Amino acid sequence: MRATVYHAPGDVRVENVPDPVIKNPTDAIVRITHACICGSDLWFYRGLDNWKPGWRTGHEWMGIVEEVGSEVRNLKKGDRVLAPFAFSDGTCEFCSKGLQTSCFEGGFWGGQNDGGQAEAVRAPFADGTLVAIPQEVEGDEKLLKAILPLTDVMSTGHHAAVSAGVQKGKTAAVVGDGAVGLCGVLAAKRLGAERIIILGRHEKRLAIARQFGATDVVTSRDEQAVQEVIEMTKGGAESVLECVGTESSMDTAIKITRPGGAVGFVGVPHGRGSINLSRMFMSNIALHGGVAPARAYIPELLKDTVAGKLDSSAVLDVTVDLNGVPSGYAAMDNREAIKVMVQP
Amino acid sequence: MRATVYHAPGDVRVENVPDPVIKNPTDAIVRITHACICGSDLWFYRGLDNWKPGWRTGHEWMGIVEEVGSEVRNLKKGDRVLAPFAFSDGTCEFCSKGLQTSCFEGGFWGGQNDGGQAEAVRAPFADGTLVAIPQEVEGDEKLLKAILPLTDVMSTGHHAAVSAGVQKGKTAAVVGDGAVGLCGVLAAKRLGAERIIILGRHEKRLAIARQFGATDVVTSRDEQAVQEVIEMTKGGAESVLECVGTESSMDTAIKITRPGGAVGFVGVPHGRGSINLSRMFMSNIALHGGVAPARAYIPELLKDTVAGKLDSSAVLDVTVDLNGVPSGYAAMDNREAIKVMVQP
Repeated sequence: MRATVYHAPGDVRVENVPDPVIKNPTDAIVRITHACICGSDLWFYRGLDNWKPGWRTGHEWMGIVEEVGSEVRNLKKGDRVLAPFAFSDGTCEFCSKGLQTSCFEGGFWGGQNDGGQAEAVRAPFADGTLVAIPQEVEGDEKLLKAILPLTDVMSTGHHAAVSAGVQKGKTAAVVGDGAVGLCGVLAAKRLGAERIIILGRHEKRLAIARQFGATDVVTSRDEQAVQEVIEMTKGGAESVLECVGTESSMDTAIKITRPGGAVGFVGVPHGRGSINLSRMFMSNIALHGGVAPARAYIPELLKDTVAGKLDSSAVLDVTVDLNGVPSGYAAMDNREAIKVMVQP
Repeated sequence: MRATVYHAPGDVRVENVPDPVIKNPTDAIVRITHACICGSDLWFYRGLDNWKPGWRTGHEWMGIVEEVGSEVRNLKKGDRVLAPFAFSDGTCEFCSKGLQTSCFEGGFWGGQNDGGQAEAVRAPFADGTLVAIPQEVEGDEKLLKAILPLTDVMSTGHHAAVSAGVQKGKTAAVVGDGAVGLCGVLAAKRLGAERIIILGRHEKRLAIARQFGATDVVTSRDEQAVQEVIEMTKGGAESVLECVGTESSMDTAIKITRPGGAVGFVGVPHGRGSINLSRMFMSNIALHGGVAPARAYIPELLKDTVAGKLDSSAVLDVTVDLNGVPSGYAAMDNREAIKVMVQP
């Protein structure tokens, strides 16, 4: 089969690789129908993660089961399945708690595991990991495109909103207008926030934010942005979604949180970070979040998506086929695309 | 009257100062019967805070009301009252939420306000701030000594436990064996933690920790301590109480927290801090806490204390009179005392 392989910074290639085969009785082989390129893929693409040549790419995907191992109980050949960006055994302490990203046996797609920017994958712990999609959606490409972001970006936006403690009738602020930030707006809206302020600077993205429910847009930077949010909210937002992952975005998030409120952080930090602990301390601002347990959220979000109540597909503004994956990376790297959908 | 006044690092003096008088109709004048020296007082005593000569000291106190302003409704001359370490108007958004430390009109005792290491204080917002103590305790010195720590250290230990999400039957770890850490052990016990691990190195303090409910003691440092707690708990404690406030203690706290768990931090940080955001992110470890809203906790903790169910007075291991305050500071600075009680 053909799959995307990392070679060097700025260099991913679609190549012939061995077909995936069942290795463990809990595996499934899935033919990919839809995948995405993630903002976090740009880290290795830009040489900022320690990736090795030969590693596979793509952690967001959906497809049709082709074969299951002898111990797979809940899935069969022909089922359409959605994969959260991490696989998990579904049985351990953390899987039982809904924190599947901490599964003792789990891992992430890509790297030394199969990746989703490919024709097919071997999926370990198929029962614990994959979520079957109702048969009724088959053939509805618009609905499939609305389901695809649940694999990561929409679940991550939801995790930011849940972690920030978004409440009905209160104010949420979202730092960052990337695909995750936009999904964070939609998640805050879905959880009932009355006022949703987005901090970003890209007109095309901010238009989607408005469409997703943002009531206010702040386009200034750093201290100026902080001042504006503090004034608009008379002291800060109860819930702040940090959807970037830099020191400066975290600083902004902590400064615009109302005393007693929370920052829900889902932007991937790299290593240690210097943060404003004094402000957190004096104002009892909590920091919650991390890598989203998408597997825990997908059933609930899928139900709303199938019912037509949740649709973040506007973040998928460019579509490529498998051969187009390298150009898709370049388009995201150049900020020409918000997020790329891949249809192998 | 006489009051303790800061002059320079290592130099606090008991001096004659003007008697306090009612300035605002919501004030009360309170004659101090009991006060404490706090571990956080050592910051200015050691020259680590930007204190100015002439500032008053002492934020933990209890006393008898001598006079009230015309708008004070809930207190009268002769009432015994306990003061949380921060005063607050009792009516604003944050006071209503139980986050009185963020009161728009509030402040802390000492500095440019009156301090508790004195014969008397002017207490602003007496109704919003002071808690009346039942008449029945009068004359019971043992009980009064058990009530006194609610002004700060016991409420702060409780805040650490609440912020760390201590749950019945689960494991809590407490970083630090100072007075706050010891109160954190007692708070975790009170909230039902089954296993309570304390990390500390002072035998006398650890003996109190055991008396307060610690089931395990870890006396090693840094990475060794982390390894021991991870092994004992097979992956970390659900709740970790950070009761020191240094970068190293916060590092330890984050490393010994179980995925999905929380660090409740009450150790006073100074400025920014470099923290292990990557571990927090990958394991969804939350950071909660800050300056304790003691005013919100005192009624509940006072009830248990008066009922004989809560007694942290063992942390008050040295008692001095007002003239003894400077030697009390020296004893805490030299670690000869855990915490000093002052009886003016």
